[in-house]
Amino acid sequence: MAILVVGSVAFDSIETPHGKVDHCLGGAATHFSLAASYFTDVRVIAVVGKDFSAENEAVMTRRGIDTRGLERADGLSFHWTGAYSGNMDEAKTLGTDLNVFANFEPKIPEAYKDTEYLFLANIDPVLQARVRSQMPKVKMVCGDTMNYWIADHRANLEKVMRELNVLLINDGEVRMLAGEKNLVVAAEKVLAMGPKTLVVKHGEYGATAFFSERSFGGGLKARHPFRAPALPLAEVVDPTGAGDSFAGGFYGYLASQPELTPAVFRKAMFYGGVMGSFAVERFGTERLQNVTREEIDARFKLFQEISHLDYTGA
Amino acid sequence: MAILVVGSVAFDSIETPHGKVDHCLGGAATHFSLAASYFTDVRVIAVVGKDFSAENEAVMTRRGIDTRGLERADGLSFHWTGAYSGNMDEAKTLGTDLNVFANFEPKIPEAYKDTEYLFLANIDPVLQARVRSQMPKVKMVCGDTMNYWIADHRANLEKVMRELNVLLINDGEVRMLAGEKNLVVAAEKVLAMGPKTLVVKHGEYGATAFFSERSFGGGLKARHPFRAPALPLAEVVDPTGAGDSFAGGFYGYLASQPELTPAVFRKAMFYGGVMGSFAVERFGTERLQNVTREEIDARFKLFQEISHLDYTGA
Repeated sequence: MAILVVGSVAFDSIETPHGKVDHCLGGAATHFSLAASYFTDVRVIAVVGKDFSAENEAVMTRRGIDTRGLERADGLSFHWTGAYSGNMDEAKTLGTDLNVFANFEPKIPEAYKDTEYLFLANIDPVLQARVRSQMPKVKMVCGDTMNYWIADHRANLEKVMRELNVLLINDGEVRMLAGEKNLVVAAEKVLAMGPKTLVVKHGEYGATAFFSERSFGGGLKARHPFRAPALPLAEVVDPTGAGDSFAGGFYGYLASQPELTPAVFRKAMFYGGVMGSFAVERFGTERLQNVTREEIDARFKLFQEISHLDYTGA
Repeated sequence: MAILVVGSVAFDSIETPHGKVDHCLGGAATHFSLAASYFTDVRVIAVVGKDFSAENEAVMTRRGIDTRGLERADGLSFHWTGAYSGNMDEAKTLGTDLNVFANFEPKIPEAYKDTEYLFLANIDPVLQARVRSQMPKVKMVCGDTMNYWIADHRANLEKVMRELNVLLINDGEVRMLAGEKNLVVAAEKVLAMGPKTLVVKHGEYGATAFFSERSFGGGLKARHPFRAPALPLAEVVDPTGAGDSFAGGFYGYLASQPELTPAVFRKAMFYGGVMGSFAVERFGTERLQNVTREEIDARFKLFQEISHLDYTGA
């Protein structure tokens, strides 16, 4: 089934130990859409400026992404400037030019309104809620957020969280949201805020899913958390968008399956790691534009090989 | 087959958010021996002071640990004072009283000299090398170290590393040893220093094994690293000795197996995580003294459940 994603489509200027790029295509919705497009149909809602070219849009349409929800406003597109050094586990933001994104008011095309899978990328929770409320047929909602909304827009964020099937955030964000250092206790507190399931991303160490009694339908239960590995990589060219690519692989696979079961959820966690591992191999979205389904499946097997006791390929 | 471990047997005074203990039995060799004792015979070489009681020794002998190598010197036993707060991922050392450990000169009892599996816990690499050189029948050597030896005793440490089948250290130590931030590149550099296999402990995120062409005999190869999970725990009472308990479970299982294969190595990584997860449930060695083999096997299954795609128990 198709996924509707609302979030940023932007230009990124990035410096890492492997080089420097200026104004390459980026943004959470872009990384997410490209990663998810290998699994299911994707519809995108975002705002871009006059500097967003036909070639920029073609990057998405070539992957079959429906861009009818891409609004063109007067002015320049959202532009982020950042740098990574050392272990590259954290970006240093050097500049955030919101430009047309400052007045982003998501508009949902009629043709999108029947979408059953909604992904709310990291934007103002007020906008996340507004989009959610206009999607009456939605079956599953997955969302992201960041420290800024957790610290200063708490009430709005909590309203969105109550509607989420899956909240996908990182270690620091879970601990901040819960006001608790222990990951398991923090996860329980966050689940009590509303999300049926919580996926915590640990960067180079993988991700952990924490389930509640509400995670699955039909009496299905997951008794314990599930940990998916990340692939140890000798070269991380650009970590920008790794988390959004994880989300795209994860949610794209979920939406492609007829039923949500614990087994399907586990595979989705692996596909999330797979797409994240591709994303960081090149600057911007380059690798996500040209990966093949065969490469994705081979890497999925590699994720099994590096984490399963009974893998027989070695 | 039996394991010989040389390292510290000490008293620890520890404060964590869960309480405070004074002079409880600790030390790397103690945690290691107790954890390994559930899998194979263990022989220990260490020095203790006059304050080391018959009851302290009985903690080890009750688990069948051979304590004939426990030397009693004039003076007090090694005493470490430390505290944990917040996420408890790092100990704050408040005091290190080496006492009799300052002049530790390991003596190997005749009855120990046929031991085939040697574990060199974190002590001066000069002593590690001296013990190694007196064990002509040794078949496998596994070792640990710490930042202090890496920074200031490099040449001695490098000599020991060349003799190791497995080097077991943590993330920060691997990066420090290699002078390299990327984990995979750092691991390759460390393997080039001599250890046939490198196991990197990631604390609450598990551990990763990096293999070389020399990891296994008989033409066996592991094509990729292996990642073992750690159990997400809602309550960590005392992290002291978690790494040594990991080493004990890991090496104890390896030594209990007739042959070293990639499949055996993977299971050993899981048993390492299992024993580490028990160790932190209580202060000091309390939990390692009374865990049962049934509990160990049940937790091993739990480790599979939280990490394997095809686990059918959920």
